[in-house]
Amino acid sequence: MSSASQRLESLKNQVLYSGPATGKEDIARERANTSFDIEAMKRFWAGGQESYDAMQKAYAMIKDDPELIVQAPRNFHELSREEHREFTMGQIFKSVQLFQDIKDPKMLEALRMALIQYSESFSMRFYVHEFLFKGALNMFGTEEQKEEWLPKIAKCQVFGCFAMTELGHSSFLRGLETRATFDVERDEFVIESPSVTATKWWIGMAAHTATHTVALCQTYIHGKNHGINWFIVPLHDRVDGELVPGVITGDIGAKYGRSGLDNGWIQFKGVRVPRGNLLGKWVSVTRDGTFNPAPNPAVMYGTLIPERLSVTTGCQIMMGQALLIAARYGVVRRQGAKNQQIMDYQSHCVNLMPGIAFQYVLRLTERVLQAQFQNLTSDGKMDPKTYLENVGDMHAVSASFKAASTWFGSEVLENCRRACGGHAYSAYNSIGAIIQDWGVVTTGAGDNVVLLQQTGKYLLYGFKEVIEGRSARGSIEYLNQYQEWLAQDSCKVDDERDWLQPSIAADVLTWIIIKQVCRSLDKTFRTNYQEAFNDNMLHIVRVAEVQCFTHLLKTYITAIDDLEKEQSNATNNTDLADIPTLKKLASLWGLHVLFKYMDFATMEGYLTATQARSIQHLYYKTCMDLRKDVIGLTDSWGIPDFIHKAPIGRYDGDIYPDYLKTLVNAPGCFGPPPYHSKYIKPLTDPSLNP
Amino acid sequence: MSSASQRLESLKNQVLYSGPATGKEDIARERANTSFDIEAMKRFWAGGQESYDAMQKAYAMIKDDPELIVQAPRNFHELSREEHREFTMGQIFKSVQLFQDIKDPKMLEALRMALIQYSESFSMRFYVHEFLFKGALNMFGTEEQKEEWLPKIAKCQVFGCFAMTELGHSSFLRGLETRATFDVERDEFVIESPSVTATKWWIGMAAHTATHTVALCQTYIHGKNHGINWFIVPLHDRVDGELVPGVITGDIGAKYGRSGLDNGWIQFKGVRVPRGNLLGKWVSVTRDGTFNPAPNPAVMYGTLIPERLSVTTGCQIMMGQALLIAARYGVVRRQGAKNQQIMDYQSHCVNLMPGIAFQYVLRLTERVLQAQFQNLTSDGKMDPKTYLENVGDMHAVSASFKAASTWFGSEVLENCRRACGGHAYSAYNSIGAIIQDWGVVTTGAGDNVVLLQQTGKYLLYGFKEVIEGRSARGSIEYLNQYQEWLAQDSCKVDDERDWLQPSIAADVLTWIIIKQVCRSLDKTFRTNYQEAFNDNMLHIVRVAEVQCFTHLLKTYITAIDDLEKEQSNATNNTDLADIPTLKKLASLWGLHVLFKYMDFATMEGYLTATQARSIQHLYYKTCMDLRKDVIGLTDSWGIPDFIHKAPIGRYDGDIYPDYLKTLVNAPGCFGPPPYHSKYIKPLTDPSLNP
Repeated sequence: MSSASQRLESLKNQVLYSGPATGKEDIARERANTSFDIEAMKRFWAGGQESYDAMQKAYAMIKDDPELIVQAPRNFHELSREEHREFTMGQIFKSVQLFQDIKDPKMLEALRMALIQYSESFSMRFYVHEFLFKGALNMFGTEEQKEEWLPKIAKCQVFGCFAMTELGHSSFLRGLETRATFDVERDEFVIESPSVTATKWWIGMAAHTATHTVALCQTYIHGKNHGINWFIVPLHDRVDGELVPGVITGDIGAKYGRSGLDNGWIQFKGVRVPRGNLLGKWVSVTRDGTFNPAPNPAVMYGTLIPERLSVTTGCQIMMGQALLIAARYGVVRRQGAKNQQIMDYQSHCVNLMPGIAFQYVLRLTERVLQAQFQNLTSDGKMDPKTYLENVGDMHAVSASFKAASTWFGSEVLENCRRACGGHAYSAYNSIGAIIQDWGVVTTGAGDNVVLLQQTGKYLLYGFKEVIEGRSARGSIEYLNQYQEWLAQDSCKVDDERDWLQPSIAADVLTWIIIKQVCRSLDKTFRTNYQEAFNDNMLHIVRVAEVQCFTHLLKTYITAIDDLEKEQSNATNNTDLADIPTLKKLASLWGLHVLFKYMDFATMEGYLTATQARSIQHLYYKTCMDLRKDVIGLTDSWGIPDFIHKAPIGRYDGDIYPDYLKTLVNAPGCFGPPPYHSKYIKPLTDPSLNP
Repeated sequence: MSSASQRLESLKNQVLYSGPATGKEDIARERANTSFDIEAMKRFWAGGQESYDAMQKAYAMIKDDPELIVQAPRNFHELSREEHREFTMGQIFKSVQLFQDIKDPKMLEALRMALIQYSESFSMRFYVHEFLFKGALNMFGTEEQKEEWLPKIAKCQVFGCFAMTELGHSSFLRGLETRATFDVERDEFVIESPSVTATKWWIGMAAHTATHTVALCQTYIHGKNHGINWFIVPLHDRVDGELVPGVITGDIGAKYGRSGLDNGWIQFKGVRVPRGNLLGKWVSVTRDGTFNPAPNPAVMYGTLIPERLSVTTGCQIMMGQALLIAARYGVVRRQGAKNQQIMDYQSHCVNLMPGIAFQYVLRLTERVLQAQFQNLTSDGKMDPKTYLENVGDMHAVSASFKAASTWFGSEVLENCRRACGGHAYSAYNSIGAIIQDWGVVTTGAGDNVVLLQQTGKYLLYGFKEVIEGRSARGSIEYLNQYQEWLAQDSCKVDDERDWLQPSIAADVLTWIIIKQVCRSLDKTFRTNYQEAFNDNMLHIVRVAEVQCFTHLLKTYITAIDDLEKEQSNATNNTDLADIPTLKKLASLWGLHVLFKYMDFATMEGYLTATQARSIQHLYYKTCMDLRKDVIGLTDSWGIPDFIHKAPIGRYDGDIYPDYLKTLVNAPGCFGPPPYHSKYIKPLTDPSLNP
């Protein structure tokens, strides 16, 4: 052993790790006092006993594999960009092999879930190929195109990415600059980036991994622009990984979050692709250059619907881990004159509990939402007529869902960060990484403000339709009864306890939406529409948020009722959800949304000051009532310590020694630093600076 | 040239940087259309012509110095933790030398400001020594102790740090575990960390740099605990940087933010210091171990007042840079069917403008606040009686100021991030780094929730005093007129334009505070005090926020009036602020605070729905009225491009080519990546995965 390592060992041995283990006792007591069966809730959460078992197997399969999980004393949070990129690609390589050997679909799903829970970079890098690239083929490709590409995608013989955004263009897709110009002589499209702002930007896997991309381009034929369409374009050689002639890609470099993903930029410099590389489900170009347009430009709206709905999973994984860490820290940490658990403080508990409730709302509603959009999210087999009839509502629901949930997510994560105090400033406690990985969700896949404005416009148009005698459908069907709603000019609730009924919260929120849509219409339809809309943008954004959260609330209420019926017929009770708890969470979610947006109703005189104060009081009270279950509610998500990685979120509550140990094992823990003689000694040494 | 570098050069040469330079034209037009003289405002902002010139000199002095500023093609945002630590210490080393050669105090201040604008790590690392360590000496040291230590501090013959927080203890200082036990025989204190949770934690410079620390310890003498006091304790040898016997320190490791600062942990294992190392301005221990306590335990409250007030500078530097970047990007970026500048959208402009107004509020009020606390913030020469009479109000003002401003700052920074869309996800555009560096400000130097509760309690007690016939002073003097305020049961404003008067906003806000304090008192004094306070925590926190922002608003109004008088006597006008603009910003700040907290007044029926809607309307309108000055308002802060480092925030508006160039020059831009043959080729090569 070298003298340097001897010195290091000696220092490590001097560190004191012992102390009162109050955390272990605290967390054990929390579990013992939980009002429901945590083990049953865990199994329910996982999707039943079989899925739960599969998850346990998946965790066991990956936990000690150094290609899938960073093994101590190395720390995931210490990976440099280079290391993280390589590690993530290694995870993909290894997991592709594992996936091929697994036949049980539950097991396949479990393994995939365990891996994406562990790393957002893995999740996103794989997702771009499996979901965005494949999804574009499914949604926009002909049967022949699917036949050609899907098997290659499945075996990762190609890696695909999704080139939509450009350096100068994002939300307004019609403004994209990249061109695909038809060369009728050679029967090819020529793909070109005409300026720096046309550079495709942020394209996941484009820098180094993807062999191909789908690229959204303005389609020029015989000098005429036929609008934006998708083209398959090769990027990197499948054998040596070199750039395909006519393509230049590079890495986006340092980012805040997901450093294991090679987000790239792409410039096309006259790269040629066969005519058949135009994805041709809705549009086609004949040999002579005749362009057959889509039946409706709305088909393009569908592009990002699946991605926006998939945020349900991202929310559960990222918010879930942060909430779990904050919850455990909150019951272990003691502070104040009475040495209280900080979770006991109203100001602490109320900041965390709504996020926890939201997880349950998502878990129960995601099945409903995914089922509604099944045809769109899986293999695009919905017939064109049905598709076009439904795509507007799908778009409105998914757009507002993505936007409102990810904003709420930012709030929840920031609350988690604050709830962990300085210890969230440490990279080793994961909250910082989660916040970074989260950030992009609020601006990617459609800017949240733009998305909410689109849902807002959908509400306004829907209402206009209803006023003009047609009827509203889907998520805004309730608008048909607008007259009955508006006939109420004040809220009749006078027994405070009624606010605990989520359906009553949903009613007030429905009234708010209809009333505020009317107010918007006053301004947007009766004067210059565009100008008025512009003056009214922030109002419309907020109304669309209410629409989203109320839709989720109603869906959750129905989902609990359905579940209650279903569970009443169950023959065993080891994987059943605790219905009273789910209902309490529904009360809380209703109160949370109501509290957040009730100013719309108080300002209209619909709610009195007394009612508003009751809502506030019950909102806080319901949070505090759920306080005793905070550990059970977060334990139920079944996230093992090696997945969330945070010492302060340890299952056993013994957080401090492990946290200190992590630091002691990190590179560069002990001084003197390499630059001591260069920069410190010349000042502090009395002989040098007398 | 090697073939690898030839290949790289050839790739770089293929990149397209050209495109329409609309950004340059846009930003030039914005400047031309600004309603005030930007150059004069710049000089005003800097503190007058002389200070402005000094700043320009300082920028010129550091701009091309590779020891002070990372020079292209290297990028500050690419520094690893190791490199950042070394670079930051190099900056300190170099700047200490520069400082010694400068005699002009304006120039000294300018150089210091330029350096802290450039790097939060530098700022904090230097600040710990110069401000916290020295500040503790000034505030708690005897004259002899100051005589001994201050000259050494000035010459950096010692580096000092500030060991307050422990792994298990933060806001509740009385709970600290570290012990200083008096050994009467040897006339020494023995400093000991009795458990893992007693480890001093987050201590800036403790890991590797500091030769000494002040440490807050429980003072045990003859078996009795005399409470917490400050002790000077050596950490590292001044010559070789090795640990002093009985001390073990290590680095906190990976953090979210300020990676150039060696935050450390410290365990004391029986290190001995002379009795004279107890800082003895307020307390003393005689040779035989008699403890003479402080006249009032409140002296300890003062510890962090200067740090909390210094947040004014941090706000201006960090929020200022983020706002400037977002503002410039917002007028250069065009999007939507009409290819509009995104700043023209209400939903964009309203999210940025209040933060910009806040900068001006801070700039004008900081002088007032600092002057009030001069004795405390500089050399602690205030006499004990005056100190004790004022420390409560100082504490309340500084605590709520730190908490409310840093929370608002988080909101502003998040808005800036969203306003830059995906481009804030890139590390090269600085917003991510600023957000990271900011995070710790909201949890360090006192948890914001706890601080606001303290100001809230101060309000409650102040009000109780007034009811009981005593009088309130300082920042809550207005409570003395509580009866007149409460006699108003509705707001009399009926001309919408009146809301533009900030004094009217201040009046409504004052009413809100008094009314809500009454509501809190109902709950906190008439039943079990502690329980009621706990049930009411969130309410009190929010009332304290109103108190803070209203105090700032009133101070800003007065400061503008004073400035207007002062400027009317000025002989030249090249460094004068534009008073009408400052007044518009006051209107906006008043409306912003009112809009944010007006639910307190609508719920009480004090404001009608019509009034509330007018406030909302004028709030948005005032933001949009200031839209045309957004570039002038942010240009006035005089921040050069090399300081903020973000290509999308370039002064000349030509953002895209520079941004792309930054990526092209970053390490690892071009593939194939080192792991291609290991992880990608085996899948994509048709001969290997057929």
